[in-house]
Amino acid sequence: MSKTAVNKDLASERAKCEFNVEELTNYLDGGRENTARRRRIEDKVLSVEELKDVVPEEYLSHKEKYENAIRKAILFYKVQKNLEDPKQPENERIRINYRNMINSAIFKDNSPLALHFVMFIPAIIGQASDEQRDYWLKRAKNVEIIGTYAQTELGHGTFIRGLETTATYDPATEEFVLHSPTLTAYKWWPGGLAHTANYCVVMAQLYTKGKSCGIQPFMVQIRDEETHMPLPGIKLGEIGAKLGFNTVNNGFLGFDNHRIPRDRMLMKNAQVSKDGTFTAGANSKLTYGTMVYVRVLIVNNMANFLAKAVTIAVRYSAVRRQSKLKPEDPEPQILDYVTQQHKLFIGIATSHAYSRTALWLWDHYAKVTSELNAGKLDNLPELHSLACCLKVLSATDAAVLVERSRLACGGHGYMLSSNLPQTYGLVTPASTYEGENTVLLLQVARSLVKAWQQMLKGKPLTPSMSYLADQNRIDRWDGSVNGIIRAFQKVARGKIAWSVTCFEKYQKEGLSYEDAWNKASVQLTAAAESHGRAIVVQVFKAETDRTTSSLSLPLRKALDQLVELFTLYWALERLGDLLLYTPLSEGDIRDMQTRYEELLEKIRPNAVGLVDAFDFRDEILNSALGAYDGRVYERLMEEALKSPLNAEPVNSSFHKYLKPFMRGKL
Amino acid sequence: MSKTAVNKDLASERAKCEFNVEELTNYLDGGRENTARRRRIEDKVLSVEELKDVVPEEYLSHKEKYENAIRKAILFYKVQKNLEDPKQPENERIRINYRNMINSAIFKDNSPLALHFVMFIPAIIGQASDEQRDYWLKRAKNVEIIGTYAQTELGHGTFIRGLETTATYDPATEEFVLHSPTLTAYKWWPGGLAHTANYCVVMAQLYTKGKSCGIQPFMVQIRDEETHMPLPGIKLGEIGAKLGFNTVNNGFLGFDNHRIPRDRMLMKNAQVSKDGTFTAGANSKLTYGTMVYVRVLIVNNMANFLAKAVTIAVRYSAVRRQSKLKPEDPEPQILDYVTQQHKLFIGIATSHAYSRTALWLWDHYAKVTSELNAGKLDNLPELHSLACCLKVLSATDAAVLVERSRLACGGHGYMLSSNLPQTYGLVTPASTYEGENTVLLLQVARSLVKAWQQMLKGKPLTPSMSYLADQNRIDRWDGSVNGIIRAFQKVARGKIAWSVTCFEKYQKEGLSYEDAWNKASVQLTAAAESHGRAIVVQVFKAETDRTTSSLSLPLRKALDQLVELFTLYWALERLGDLLLYTPLSEGDIRDMQTRYEELLEKIRPNAVGLVDAFDFRDEILNSALGAYDGRVYERLMEEALKSPLNAEPVNSSFHKYLKPFMRGKL
Repeated sequence: MSKTAVNKDLASERAKCEFNVEELTNYLDGGRENTARRRRIEDKVLSVEELKDVVPEEYLSHKEKYENAIRKAILFYKVQKNLEDPKQPENERIRINYRNMINSAIFKDNSPLALHFVMFIPAIIGQASDEQRDYWLKRAKNVEIIGTYAQTELGHGTFIRGLETTATYDPATEEFVLHSPTLTAYKWWPGGLAHTANYCVVMAQLYTKGKSCGIQPFMVQIRDEETHMPLPGIKLGEIGAKLGFNTVNNGFLGFDNHRIPRDRMLMKNAQVSKDGTFTAGANSKLTYGTMVYVRVLIVNNMANFLAKAVTIAVRYSAVRRQSKLKPEDPEPQILDYVTQQHKLFIGIATSHAYSRTALWLWDHYAKVTSELNAGKLDNLPELHSLACCLKVLSATDAAVLVERSRLACGGHGYMLSSNLPQTYGLVTPASTYEGENTVLLLQVARSLVKAWQQMLKGKPLTPSMSYLADQNRIDRWDGSVNGIIRAFQKVARGKIAWSVTCFEKYQKEGLSYEDAWNKASVQLTAAAESHGRAIVVQVFKAETDRTTSSLSLPLRKALDQLVELFTLYWALERLGDLLLYTPLSEGDIRDMQTRYEELLEKIRPNAVGLVDAFDFRDEILNSALGAYDGRVYERLMEEALKSPLNAEPVNSSFHKYLKPFMRGKL
Repeated sequence: MSKTAVNKDLASERAKCEFNVEELTNYLDGGRENTARRRRIEDKVLSVEELKDVVPEEYLSHKEKYENAIRKAILFYKVQKNLEDPKQPENERIRINYRNMINSAIFKDNSPLALHFVMFIPAIIGQASDEQRDYWLKRAKNVEIIGTYAQTELGHGTFIRGLETTATYDPATEEFVLHSPTLTAYKWWPGGLAHTANYCVVMAQLYTKGKSCGIQPFMVQIRDEETHMPLPGIKLGEIGAKLGFNTVNNGFLGFDNHRIPRDRMLMKNAQVSKDGTFTAGANSKLTYGTMVYVRVLIVNNMANFLAKAVTIAVRYSAVRRQSKLKPEDPEPQILDYVTQQHKLFIGIATSHAYSRTALWLWDHYAKVTSELNAGKLDNLPELHSLACCLKVLSATDAAVLVERSRLACGGHGYMLSSNLPQTYGLVTPASTYEGENTVLLLQVARSLVKAWQQMLKGKPLTPSMSYLADQNRIDRWDGSVNGIIRAFQKVARGKIAWSVTCFEKYQKEGLSYEDAWNKASVQLTAAAESHGRAIVVQVFKAETDRTTSSLSLPLRKALDQLVELFTLYWALERLGDLLLYTPLSEGDIRDMQTRYEELLEKIRPNAVGLVDAFDFRDEILNSALGAYDGRVYERLMEEALKSPLNAEPVNSSFHKYLKPFMRGKL
């Protein structure tokens, strides 16, 4: 097959797609201009030859990987810098760039400079006083210094109050003394911390005048700007190899009574005066804003990574032929197996669901943020609870469905040249970082239980929980998408009610509040998950309806099919719940199964078009199995030949070990 | 904390365990002598200093990993060789060594010589004629040659009939001409094939006298014994980096009209005479035996890997303290969170379930094999179906529960020093190799549909499917373990009946047999899975009852709790099915949930004892989080310091890139 030809199966898939692929791409990007802008960025970055690896990074040693990543990170930064429109407001930039995945074309395992931009600069913006900000933001934005953000410690992650690093104010010298009293107090995880950053925003327990004043942020220089040597009293290093993110240079950081000037505490909120007087911040809840912001980004990221994985798997499934359905026919494309459609089409639908949900959540966030600036805090708790919930579900579902996509590619999905294992490596930590999933679900459960108890007292509920007040049972099963959404709300309501019952029962039996909560926690997390499911399905349906009216009929039909597939898939996954809390009958289940199978059949001719519309360039997919031309086997071989082991026909270990061994001389 | 002390939380866990840990270890090993034998082997192997890595292999380049693995593989072979008892029959050796995991103490990612022993030698034994065997087995057993086994091709895996490599007999020269007519015909995957093996058993489509004679095995020399250069007409190389198994040297192999003498076809079964006359083998079904054998090993392996993962996670959960349950108390061990118990205890129970099931299947296999030798083939299809089914479920469950164990360790589970990511890397391919899981489930479904149709005609059923004939409905819910087992059988029966209904309905609507089968395949695989679930629960219960009568009461109680936990867990996971096919009520569900939560509470004090009883030495666990002494944080730091990046305080990339960059000079 020629290097320019497209696999004929893929070509014929494209010919039979029923909607306009470019129209869908524009819809996903939020308009034709955004698509064009994204493609311009991709063209520019990908035209830089030095950003391409001759030897894929998976063949390098851990150290070589880092050094190569530093080289590329700097080059990448400079190329991108030239593409930025400085007049574009931050807010708009994010809304427009949410499908920009160019980063993953350069780094299979992310950049060692990422935290400088994603955490260090936002921390300065969010936590520094005006004066501090003027100074540090300029240095950071000009990259005169490279920073990172250190919060998590070896012994404490999600539970922030447990952090052990101390910052004790010494009024005699007007300094803070940073100290790691134990090994578990060492900062652990920050990207770039090991060998890249020379500054760091450190979260530490503040003590002044002998009193504990909570966790506060400090700007700490960690390496000499000239020599890059760690400063005295600072212990720095790399935390070692991981499942993924191996090029981000995650580090540890310990302090041995290290002193910094008073003005290095970031004092936008709380302050310490020269004499050591502590003034608390106006509202500590304001920091929730940043957490919510990061979680919106995660939901969006999960949608994008899942889209990558399912693009690879669907294209491969159109090219791969295997087994015989009928003795006289050729081997079918594996995409023709209904079991394969069952594995993959839900991945397409789920990516759409979370990408819509992320946009909806983003708008919600923007609204609440502007309310915050006007001093209105009422809607913050609901936003926080929504963001927790959606972060958990998107991270969970993306991990499951990326793995399912990988396994749907059989053995070849196990090859790193498929890029599926690395995609999983980038998706799975989202279940742990920025709030461990189970802990977050329990926070959501807490807000649900509170809402439930308020509802019983006749108090009003927030919009996303208003369904709790609807006490009417469903009389007759309604299998429409909206009917199933209502059924999901009944399930969530029923499970919340039941977990409250358990929780209260345990208390009546004599358990303390906390022990009763713990004992009911398996039910409580299940209730919180059901609440999230109801929201995602409802938002996906409502936002699709709201945003598709101007689209062409064939595309609207294709998108409606995804919404229906998503809804039916989850109904069939949760039959036990539906049987318990709604009047669903066996016959209704059979109907749904039949409709689900019919939908798979309807989506089948559009499958390749649907993933093409995600519009990932080959360099971004980085996958022998998923490239646009479908030259799967040729690319697998081309990638294999890049292995340095293949550079010589006989490895030196033959002469050193194998030959003497086979001759009985070793 | 001193390097010899045991973490005090782990010590107090051990003090409160209610049963004798050593007694459980002996039970798992199949007797005290087996435990002693296993430990002797471990002691011997682990006393060899040269087998230990100074720099963990995750820091090496791909090429260095291979070279280091070859060095260790030879040493490991020699140490093990001296420990073997040559008089021990093969069969007994396997039965005794099924908990020997010493291999994983030496190789995190397996050995490049593994296939020589696991596939090459068994292929000679199973497929060579007596004369051939005398010659090749001696050379292979003395390791005068190193071999592997090549079946899978770039374009074909599970569907063996689709293999494209040809072996065409040329009577003029009395040779077979091996050829790869396409790129997809290249052999792809065999361990050791790339740079290690010099011989290979190759499966190819035999053609003689112009006729196709099916897939046959050929002994092919692939490299010169003196120079190790690939022979003329042979293209060899490495397939590249993978999610795991990176040190086994998986290779590809293509033939360009490569000629081998006639006597290199392995002729135990089929034969080709000098003039090219083909004689088919006596019974092609005999080769099923080997497939079953390998699948039994997989079930056992899955149990062992899962035991490793859950040992790491449970010990870590006893050491890790996080958050506050009660304001006045210290941070609790995370093992005290019921959500954490819910994640982990099922892993312990599942490892027991599959280890029991593997032994049961092994005995079944031994019985059927001896029947085969006596010419009796009747029980082979049932054995084949059982092995398929149990391979699928054990691989699926182990992968899910290893990942759950990893995620239960939070961020630290993402560190390679936890050894959890690598354990997943070794477990997940079992869903693909030796028969892709969905394909196997459809094979099981085929045997179930056949049995169903026979049952309707009044014909007898095999023991594992006899429940299909029981037409009595369950009148009243029975929540005992045996009651739930019967309910699972009703579920399986109901789902099989339903998928047959669908399948037949589609045919009546005009679809061909094959299209109807495909359209019903989501239901059919679900039915096959339910059948497997019913079998595992039933075997776990029956075999535990059968084998524990001589154990002490506290141990029996602990094991019965695991059986009950496993049963209730799956009942709660499958509420939809139970509500559909049994008279389960909402009240019954509440009862089961309460019992499940009570069981978690009962198992809690024994959790560390249960994983200690798996008796993995620290070198086998290879995990900073899971070591016996619980020095979690110290070991995480010790492992981090082994990273070559930590050997120098400033990486060279600072001077080369970062400094000029920050000075605006790059």
